[in-house]
Amino acid sequence: MPEIRLNLITGDWVIIATERAKRPEDFSHTKEKKDLPRYVSTCPFCPGNEDKTPLATFKLTGSDGNWSVRSVPNKFSALTPVGDILKSKTDFKQYISGVGLHEVIIETPEHNMTTALLPLNQIEQILVSYRNRLHAFYKDPRIEHVIIFKNHGQSAGTSLEHPHSQIVGTPVFPGQVMNRLEEALRSYYYVNFGECLYCSHVKDEMKDGTRVIFENNSFVVFIPYAALSPFHLWVFPKKHNACFGHINDSELSDLAIALKETLLRLYVGLENPDFNYVVRSLSPREADSKYFHWYIAIVPRVSQIAGFELGTGMYINTALPEASAEFLRNVKLP
Amino acid sequence: MPEIRLNLITGDWVIIATERAKRPEDFSHTKEKKDLPRYVSTCPFCPGNEDKTPLATFKLTGSDGNWSVRSVPNKFSALTPVGDILKSKTDFKQYISGVGLHEVIIETPEHNMTTALLPLNQIEQILVSYRNRLHAFYKDPRIEHVIIFKNHGQSAGTSLEHPHSQIVGTPVFPGQVMNRLEEALRSYYYVNFGECLYCSHVKDEMKDGTRVIFENNSFVVFIPYAALSPFHLWVFPKKHNACFGHINDSELSDLAIALKETLLRLYVGLENPDFNYVVRSLSPREADSKYFHWYIAIVPRVSQIAGFELGTGMYINTALPEASAEFLRNVKLP
Repeated sequence: MPEIRLNLITGDWVIIATERAKRPEDFSHTKEKKDLPRYVSTCPFCPGNEDKTPLATFKLTGSDGNWSVRSVPNKFSALTPVGDILKSKTDFKQYISGVGLHEVIIETPEHNMTTALLPLNQIEQILVSYRNRLHAFYKDPRIEHVIIFKNHGQSAGTSLEHPHSQIVGTPVFPGQVMNRLEEALRSYYYVNFGECLYCSHVKDEMKDGTRVIFENNSFVVFIPYAALSPFHLWVFPKKHNACFGHINDSELSDLAIALKETLLRLYVGLENPDFNYVVRSLSPREADSKYFHWYIAIVPRVSQIAGFELGTGMYINTALPEASAEFLRNVKLP
Repeated sequence: MPEIRLNLITGDWVIIATERAKRPEDFSHTKEKKDLPRYVSTCPFCPGNEDKTPLATFKLTGSDGNWSVRSVPNKFSALTPVGDILKSKTDFKQYISGVGLHEVIIETPEHNMTTALLPLNQIEQILVSYRNRLHAFYKDPRIEHVIIFKNHGQSAGTSLEHPHSQIVGTPVFPGQVMNRLEEALRSYYYVNFGECLYCSHVKDEMKDGTRVIFENNSFVVFIPYAALSPFHLWVFPKKHNACFGHINDSELSDLAIALKETLLRLYVGLENPDFNYVVRSLSPREADSKYFHWYIAIVPRVSQIAGFELGTGMYINTALPEASAEFLRNVKLP
């Protein structure tokens, strides 16, 4: 019998299609991956082509004295960085001018690398860049919300192979984030007697253990009880804080370890699947919020949404979260 | 300058990326479509293979005396039709047994047909089948919500070529639908002084006209002001009713015309794009609800969602709704 599980964080019911469930190894990325070169002369993100991108707003230096991570304004930005915010509201047409910030964080000089295979100190540098850009974006008074994300592979929506993340600052607060806050606020006050919904959730997953993939001092990684899609993972800081920007250096090192370990298990176990990850965080000025808790969601793109999901917001997950977690725990790492 | 528009029905902000906008014709489906045969001996939905599906729960007969539309239980159902509803709730694990109904509506005996090219009376028969199955599903006391949808093409999530729709009855009320109701209820009472949010919206789009594709006595088709994705279309009944099941025969004929005309414009203009459509409706017992209004959303799958959309629920639409509507209005029909 399938189970319909409630995802308390998103508020969505998920059909865990146990009877149609595939084996974890069936989600392996079977598409042939081509071998990429270490350097591509036409790639705007490769070293030597720095003039093909706008000037870096932030960069870090590697042990060889060259840049190791660069953040540059997105040449094909979805929003315009210069301009005032104009608002207009008539009965059914409410809009705000598309002013905002959009940068690309080039994660490594090497064209053919991937996060899972990068050395730990390089991943730390990527996270340091995230932290820096998040604070910088929120200093712009026009910015209401900042989202950091990575698209890996074509089916995850990227067209550029060179490893990169993106950070976008919008002049509006997204409705979906607002819904999450409302859920958390309601649960915080009414169900948890003042405890953060996310903290309780994380404690519960750690106590249960069947869906946990990895844990260190500061972070725990698990497939949620009601994962929306196969191998959907959450990376949660154990310490309560609503803003990723408040992560300290030792936590940041722990996060680099957790992220590398998790992505490596996906890379080996599912043969380098396409994936997105997203850093869900409030602003530094809301860091002390008692009811929100920042985290990273990793979504391997191994399944497709169709009419049912579009029309209900409910997902059909053809992987049993407990079996997927066990599979990832048992992946033999090189 | 891009515009960020508010979709009042979904509550989502949409970035209309005017500067990155593509021309409407650039969304044409460029993948080569293979010519399909009219009959495939191994297809479970082709005539003569009726024993490869469970027994039909409903069927209609064509002028040749054979079945023209058949509804059959889904052999690979996401939910189990037989069984009691069991509920369980502990702190973070809330579930309900996966009991529900799931049928496939085979839309035509012809393997290589598509809705846009079907004769009108055949489309009417499909809609009659939807209406019948919706009522039948809601008679099952275990069913809380029913969704009717169609997945056309691989990127819309279908694996079977033979034209078909699906109908699913779930024992839970979907969170996304609940959110829409809450939005509509709030707007109905507080903003619109008692007028249905959807009715007002439809009137406004008709008055404006720039995004309208088609209109007849009972229906109007438009690309909403804040369309979430390129060529995202809404088919709205002009008469207020919350339940599709209450459509009468003359309205049903008008809907068949509106649906055929719209799908044909997409078929010709975008070269048979993959798409989903969804009938959004409440149950017959809620048909008199003053604040919900049933409608059909058509979503051509001509763009991809990535980390930004996953992390914010905000969409980046690279097509200007007004330009897309003009393009579709100007499509030369055969």
